[in-house]
Amino acid sequence: MNASAGPKAPGGADDATTSDSASMPRSGRKVTTSNRQSPRKSGDERWKELLDVSARMFADRGYAATSLQHIADELGMLKGSLYYYIKTKDDLLYEVIRGVYWEGVANFRRITTGPGDAVDRLEHAIQGHVRYLIDNITATTVFLHEFDQLSPGRREELSALGYTEQLRDLIRAGQAEGSIRPEIDASMAALAVLGATNWIYRWYRDPGSRGPDEIGRQFSDIFVSGLVSPSRKA
Amino acid sequence: MNASAGPKAPGGADDATTSDSASMPRSGRKVTTSNRQSPRKSGDERWKELLDVSARMFADRGYAATSLQHIADELGMLKGSLYYYIKTKDDLLYEVIRGVYWEGVANFRRITTGPGDAVDRLEHAIQGHVRYLIDNITATTVFLHEFDQLSPGRREELSALGYTEQLRDLIRAGQAEGSIRPEIDASMAALAVLGATNWIYRWYRDPGSRGPDEIGRQFSDIFVSGLVSPSRKA
Repeated sequence: MNASAGPKAPGGADDATTSDSASMPRSGRKVTTSNRQSPRKSGDERWKELLDVSARMFADRGYAATSLQHIADELGMLKGSLYYYIKTKDDLLYEVIRGVYWEGVANFRRITTGPGDAVDRLEHAIQGHVRYLIDNITATTVFLHEFDQLSPGRREELSALGYTEQLRDLIRAGQAEGSIRPEIDASMAALAVLGATNWIYRWYRDPGSRGPDEIGRQFSDIFVSGLVSPSRKA
Repeated sequence: MNASAGPKAPGGADDATTSDSASMPRSGRKVTTSNRQSPRKSGDERWKELLDVSARMFADRGYAATSLQHIADELGMLKGSLYYYIKTKDDLLYEVIRGVYWEGVANFRRITTGPGDAVDRLEHAIQGHVRYLIDNITATTVFLHEFDQLSPGRREELSALGYTEQLRDLIRAGQAEGSIRPEIDASMAALAVLGATNWIYRWYRDPGSRGPDEIGRQFSDIFVSGLVSPSRKA
């Protein structure tokens, strides 16, 4: 366990749009900026803004502690106007998670089924996953921390073609081709890799000290060295 | 990310006391069992029971969604009687986390400062951490998932002598003695190990399939192989 790095970064320190929210008292109401009231804002823009604000507030305060009223206040909207876009708070959580999930899974699949032997692909998959996670730290935080708050049917839908299975299959392919050690339990190894990389959302704050490339290189080095077969090394 | 293994096990599937709560509707009120009303129950027993019930409810529903009223109902107490033990809900969260945290850190320290070279100690520390985490899965889940809900002063207190620092120092000691590869970033490696092991609370459900010893062996094998210096291996 890792208490000193425990609290998740409020909204992700690399995301400039979170800075005013992070310094805002939890019960505070933000002054609505004038551009938010622009009559020229289309429905699509408003929807995107709703998702961005929801993601940020869910990441900052937690899903359970954020009400639709909080979100409406933050957007300078009446709460009733939210029902033009969604029916329940669960709808917002689902939309935030769905977006970052499917894109991430698709990126991951391009790498795990791409060129190279299994060890090359493992290396690139870890580096790509770290990069994607940090590039999308706010939505990723919501996904990783609040997934179990989704309604059961939606959890099931998003679990269909997951990261774990892709990674497990890649490791098994490496064992079949001889590039990964046969004594490794592929499911356990997949969970170790995903645990190490997913946990980044709990400690990643200061991109100045160690950025995604450096973290990705270190993590992929550790896991590749830990899993590779001695015969491939030679 | 790992959506298929995403939802935390409700209270930990290995903990028989959680099964009735897990099947209870969220809004339901549990029938109080007769032994809970025993007049012979001492204040110490009641306090322990209060902590156990709080840990289980925080792990099941999440801290923000659990009220003092929910906890009093579950215990068959009046909410007002809780104030004999605590002042705020934060007090309960703190007591649940503090207990599992200090004992875990102390166990970890006995290993990281114990006998053997740094690689031996790393191996034992990973196995011991996995074992401790799973043996205390309910309180551990609360610690790992709800740490950032603690008040800032308490977060700071519990971060003072953390796992990350112990592990980083152990890895640096291994680099100094030549048993761990010099190109490893000790802080990154510590975070990788803790991420992989801490993440167990998100997927650990069925102790029948792979128990703590098997998980500990697999994880320590991967990280030891990933970090050890080739000269020590030879």
